[in-house]
Amino acid sequence: MSSVDNSELRVGMVGYAFMGAAHSQAWRTVNRVFDLPVRARMALICGRDESKVADAAVRLGWDGHTTDWRELIARDDIDIVDVCTPGDSHAEITIAALEAGKHVLCEKPLANTVDEARAMVAAAAKAQTVGVRAMCGFNYRRVPAVSLMRELVASGRLGTIRHVRAVYLQDWITDPQFPLVWRLQKDKAGSGALGDIGAHIIDLTQFVTGKRITGVSAITETFVKERPLPAESSGLAASADGAGGAGATGQVTVDDAAVFVARLDGGGLATYEATRFATGRRNALRVEINGSLGSVAFDLERLNELEFFDATEPGVEQGFRRILVTEGDHPYMAAWWPPGHIIGYEHSFTHEFRDFLAALASGSDPTPSFADALQVQLVLDAVARSAEIGSSWTEVEPVLAPVSA
Amino acid sequence: MSSVDNSELRVGMVGYAFMGAAHSQAWRTVNRVFDLPVRARMALICGRDESKVADAAVRLGWDGHTTDWRELIARDDIDIVDVCTPGDSHAEITIAALEAGKHVLCEKPLANTVDEARAMVAAAAKAQTVGVRAMCGFNYRRVPAVSLMRELVASGRLGTIRHVRAVYLQDWITDPQFPLVWRLQKDKAGSGALGDIGAHIIDLTQFVTGKRITGVSAITETFVKERPLPAESSGLAASADGAGGAGATGQVTVDDAAVFVARLDGGGLATYEATRFATGRRNALRVEINGSLGSVAFDLERLNELEFFDATEPGVEQGFRRILVTEGDHPYMAAWWPPGHIIGYEHSFTHEFRDFLAALASGSDPTPSFADALQVQLVLDAVARSAEIGSSWTEVEPVLAPVSA
Amino acid sequence: MSSVDNSELRVGMVGYAFMGAAHSQAWRTVNRVFDLPVRARMALICGRDESKVADAAVRLGWDGHTTDWRELIARDDIDIVDVCTPGDSHAEITIAALEAGKHVLCEKPLANTVDEARAMVAAAAKAQTVGVRAMCGFNYRRVPAVSLMRELVASGRLGTIRHVRAVYLQDWITDPQFPLVWRLQKDKAGSGALGDIGAHIIDLTQFVTGKRITGVSAITETFVKERPLPAESSGLAASADGAGGAGATGQVTVDDAAVFVARLDGGGLATYEATRFATGRRNALRVEINGSLGSVAFDLERLNELEFFDATEPGVEQGFRRILVTEGDHPYMAAWWPPGHIIGYEHSFTHEFRDFLAALASGSDPTPSFADALQVQLVLDAVARSAEIGSSWTEVEPVLAPVSA
Amino acid sequence: MSSVDNSELRVGMVGYAFMGAAHSQAWRTVNRVFDLPVRARMALICGRDESKVADAAVRLGWDGHTTDWRELIARDDIDIVDVCTPGDSHAEITIAALEAGKHVLCEKPLANTVDEARAMVAAAAKAQTVGVRAMCGFNYRRVPAVSLMRELVASGRLGTIRHVRAVYLQDWITDPQFPLVWRLQKDKAGSGALGDIGAHIIDLTQFVTGKRITGVSAITETFVKERPLPAESSGLAASADGAGGAGATGQVTVDDAAVFVARLDGGGLATYEATRFATGRRNALRVEINGSLGSVAFDLERLNELEFFDATEPGVEQGFRRILVTEGDHPYMAAWWPPGHIIGYEHSFTHEFRDFLAALASGSDPTPSFADALQVQLVLDAVARSAEIGSSWTEVEPVLAPVSA
Repeated sequence: MSSVDNSELRVGMVGYAFMGAAHSQAWRTVNRVFDLPVRARMALICGRDESKVADAAVRLGWDGHTTDWRELIARDDIDIVDVCTPGDSHAEITIAALEAGKHVLCEKPLANTVDEARAMVAAAAKAQTVGVRAMCGFNYRRVPAVSLMRELVASGRLGTIRHVRAVYLQDWITDPQFPLVWRLQKDKAGSGALGDIGAHIIDLTQFVTGKRITGVSAITETFVKERPLPAESSGLAASADGAGGAGATGQVTVDDAAVFVARLDGGGLATYEATRFATGRRNALRVEINGSLGSVAFDLERLNELEFFDATEPGVEQGFRRILVTEGDHPYMAAWWPPGHIIGYEHSFTHEFRDFLAALASGSDPTPSFADALQVQLVLDAVARSAEIGSSWTEVEPVLAPVSA
Repeated sequence: MSSVDNSELRVGMVGYAFMGAAHSQAWRTVNRVFDLPVRARMALICGRDESKVADAAVRLGWDGHTTDWRELIARDDIDIVDVCTPGDSHAEITIAALEAGKHVLCEKPLANTVDEARAMVAAAAKAQTVGVRAMCGFNYRRVPAVSLMRELVASGRLGTIRHVRAVYLQDWITDPQFPLVWRLQKDKAGSGALGDIGAHIIDLTQFVTGKRITGVSAITETFVKERPLPAESSGLAASADGAGGAGATGQVTVDDAAVFVARLDGGGLATYEATRFATGRRNALRVEINGSLGSVAFDLERLNELEFFDATEPGVEQGFRRILVTEGDHPYMAAWWPPGHIIGYEHSFTHEFRDFLAALASGSDPTPSFADALQVQLVLDAVARSAEIGSSWTEVEPVLAPVSA
Repeated sequence: MSSVDNSELRVGMVGYAFMGAAHSQAWRTVNRVFDLPVRARMALICGRDESKVADAAVRLGWDGHTTDWRELIARDDIDIVDVCTPGDSHAEITIAALEAGKHVLCEKPLANTVDEARAMVAAAAKAQTVGVRAMCGFNYRRVPAVSLMRELVASGRLGTIRHVRAVYLQDWITDPQFPLVWRLQKDKAGSGALGDIGAHIIDLTQFVTGKRITGVSAITETFVKERPLPAESSGLAASADGAGGAGATGQVTVDDAAVFVARLDGGGLATYEATRFATGRRNALRVEINGSLGSVAFDLERLNELEFFDATEPGVEQGFRRILVTEGDHPYMAAWWPPGHIIGYEHSFTHEFRDFLAALASGSDPTPSFADALQVQLVLDAVARSAEIGSSWTEVEPVLAPVSA
Repeated sequence: MSSVDNSELRVGMVGYAFMGAAHSQAWRTVNRVFDLPVRARMALICGRDESKVADAAVRLGWDGHTTDWRELIARDDIDIVDVCTPGDSHAEITIAALEAGKHVLCEKPLANTVDEARAMVAAAAKAQTVGVRAMCGFNYRRVPAVSLMRELVASGRLGTIRHVRAVYLQDWITDPQFPLVWRLQKDKAGSGALGDIGAHIIDLTQFVTGKRITGVSAITETFVKERPLPAESSGLAASADGAGGAGATGQVTVDDAAVFVARLDGGGLATYEATRFATGRRNALRVEINGSLGSVAFDLERLNELEFFDATEPGVEQGFRRILVTEGDHPYMAAWWPPGHIIGYEHSFTHEFRDFLAALASGSDPTPSFADALQVQLVLDAVARSAEIGSSWTEVEPVLAPVSA
């Protein structure tokens, strides 16, 4: 069992909360469902709390555990480092792992600052010269309906892109008594709704349209400015009554919501909204794209469906059609169930890891690259800066590095 | 037939195209469906083309016709002037009518410029002192589901308003060969999608939330900058090959689309989009409002429905409910059919005229007032100015006159 | 005004409740919206209660009124008799009117019994030889989306019809205290949900598919067998506390619900359900038809929409498309508003009257004919008989008279 | 690795096609996601084709494989036998396994005939006396929205059940060239759409309502009576050109579709339809239940959603609400992702196995029991017999054995 199959790639994952559980499910599944030339082995899980990470290792199915990510990176028997930590440690862990010759899969957003992201891109570029690969985990690209959207746009079915409207609506902190978890602290999370969920719609819409956001005008807001300190938190759930004793509170240092208008290269207009205060919308990532020849619309809460409008059809028969993206010839779906048998959120990670492993096996660069993720970071940065200067128009800085097509 | 019943109010309508037809249907219907102390008589219709307006009078059911709006205003036997013309003549006709002691119902947007709108407000204020009333026709306020939304917000069911997202999406000019009708000419229409349909969502969301837009950051765009001259047009339909001969074209001088972010008094954030280039969206006025205790969502293409989310219910049972707004105790609906039997677009005008006639009968001021409509005009103006100065933040000017609650 | 234009057809309507109001709105509108060679004049309305019918005449816009339908039929200045009474008087009034040389438009269901319906068919056949026309008012055929369904089926887009599933769900009598209105009395209404709303889905599905129901196996049920006597009722609304004094009750003598399976000529299978006990479904007439090449689905609560599935499209793009049936080239819609501006329930009557008037003007037979309506009556009869004999299979009797295509 | 943990239960699964893959995913996942006192070990997979089952063992993650189900049953190191074969072998394998002291989980429908099902119930009853448990795999009971439906009904929120309408619509054999796979052969499958998917809606609606079907009147049909022999098939996919050489065909010996009306104990009416010819409906299991106080509606293609109507709310606010069944306090969902992150088809098996393992651990009887499944079989039998005798009313035979509540 300790001998290593040449075709086996041993994964070390840093983080074990919500993202860690989702990644574990996907690592466990990817080779059971997809035929790939390499196999992932769930070798090592890393977290700061010895007792919790030990439990997680058993429960989630990892061979071993450690509390020191440096040890994880130092080990010879780790081929891939999967970074699921809060954004403040992405840069340090990722750069160290790449320098140690490990392939890296880093969760989004790539970093908390543009500077960190640039350093990570540089590290990835250097590593790439010796065959070490890096990828950023914008998992929603791998939702089959999203892949299908991209194919429809890429094949010209939408014509010239005129409009993008994208929202990512959640409501898990509308209660002012919800505590001050790490996602609400700027030093840990970098930003609030903007980086956490706004990053997803920025990446997704740019991915699908093949167009970049060139400039923005933005507003951000923190509706609840002070919250109870948390006792403990995991994922998106938490209870108050924390470290400072009953009644202790702290400042919320990130945005609760961000809205912005944007221009796309090629001439399109776009609106974006990311919020954690959209009461009743649990996880409503909704995107609509209008082109001169057609339109598409998508809702993550119904992720197996894609609405498509084809303006080249006879007028009396035109309409938005609900494509149930569960056919064998839809992206990724041949591996799963018969038509009409839907998949869930976690499958986006399984598909992501499939593509990552396939790229490693073939010696090609997986996407989205760190440079792609830096470009998203630059948009986030432009949004934040615009909001700071009274919504003034703010150009998105260039990446100054190759971005994958 | 020439003797006038004291309770009869004789209407003279200026304009006979799309809006004229819709208004005629509503004037014809309002007293048949609603019990009101006054009756509207379809006395006189006015249009510039003698032959067409004569035909319209017969077809739409008006007692007589004229080609001179000044004559219409001068006649003793006209009590109400209904202004359905393009925006460039609203101010002149309306002010003259008010000065002649006629009650005025003026279509939206109130005017093509803020200056005109201010002059109209002044005229209305003066007229009001002698019991002459003025109202602007934002008919969507009278869609029962919209009225119900306002009631829910007003009664506190949504709590503090956090987010407004509003779009009005159409697609009737996506074809670059669609001709240069009056709605695409700044001198006639004032603006494009912004004033035509953007005005509706500005008014509707302010009406429903009771909150004003205080500032905006906007982008406008004209995707197709030159179009064939029209042969003839009516309503939203037209054919090319027009006045200048085959192949003659002209400049589009209005916006095809406008997008903006906004702040509301009370602290909410909002996004707005008005466009005529949303392929596949025929008339999609969609509004969602999120408050701290609940949310509502509305789509004009399904105008008999309202989605309502009540966050005070037990968590496992929460969900957006589709209220079919066709019950006898829903706004305006007792007058119509049994539950589940839906109404259409035109009914919004019937309801508007019902409220207008009821106000006249009771000697009270109908709403929205001209001052309310001026406030919308000031938002439109702020949007246009923001777009002209590179999306910079632009405060909405104050009305400086009483605005109805 | 009293002289009669040759192209004017003077309507006498019998009945003034829910159906009377809906018909009045349509008679008032039809010539204002459609260009027709003949004009309908709302000449005379008839009802049993002098005071109420006098009020209705004024409110609904009829020139005069009477309490005697025989007088209405006897008058020289009535060309069309519009029968909106409960089913128990359809045969008598209709046959008398046809014999008097009046064109007749009779509400559905045609009669309360097959014998009556056969007599009406005979009377219509005789009248037709002298140019007098008869039509039964299955108004839902004229909903544009339903017409479009028929066109799609007729043009072969669905291929061979395999399945029909049709429900008409209402819930207005779920409360056991809802009183015993005429629609719940067999002597007045003939049957309950079956004839009132079941008749609609039988006619609609046969109309759309062009297939006849050949046999059925049925269950009917009366969930609430005794109800308070009504004080007064109109349309579908009523209050208890009636003729027999407080607390008096009577037997419900009709079905609350009817369900049946059926075979269609051509080999298809069908399921039908008509009920007044579908809590939460106000007026949910829902039909889906599956053919070998495609499918359609329709819901009366969203009557401006049609869902269409085309199985001949590429597999990855297939899906039910929502056609918003509001385009100028959709059936009936050129007369109304721009695309996306929806119409309501009452428009189905306006369209029905348009077709009726057009047939009269051209001297052709309007559809559905009385023979068509008899065929529906024969299906209703088969359903009722099957239910009486323990759901045994019951063939639908042949009409033995020409049925229009 | 060969030593057996006391808390480990070793599973032997018979079958490796569609159901085998789905079960494997669930066995792999159940202990990773749910905290349970016992762990399932994927010990042995059995199939008739040595090469294929060996591949499946590796791909799906089983410790070993065999081609002989009797060997599987004979082994000491197997605790649970999971039967995923076509229905013709359920009885033999299951009874042998129970007699050998193995817990059995048998896929639905329980058997191909009532006699087989009765024998299985007897075997299960005998085994139960020595602590050996049996369960039938109606996995859709474990869809969280379905569990929630049952809870709503059980807690009285729907009042008295009036109506059930249930369809299970698929379209995978509409093409007449689709080959004669085992599911179309009576000797293998027992019946067609009826047993395969009709069984699901029978079980699901009885489970949710707590009411039994007491009698039925049914039609079944085979639209395509002859099909090409298959080359090879797996799951619901297959290609023609088979054993008999190109062009060889065989008789379809099962129903393509079954429709029936039914009575429920307690007085409700029901309609059911199961078909493989509903063009465009890939996997549309749709159920609606109307009670005197409320209604619920469910669609398997949107399995994370439940529509609920509460008639006890104020009238103006009533509506079907879309509950997104992804909250931590929804059935099974605490184990998965944050609210709004949806799950898929396969999760129903994971939940099923969770409940099965929990019952084994606690020494209680898992549900649905074999007696429950026999009751479904008796309904299927009544449907088939009714269809054979011209749709005559057919009572459902009693189980004559305890059925779990």
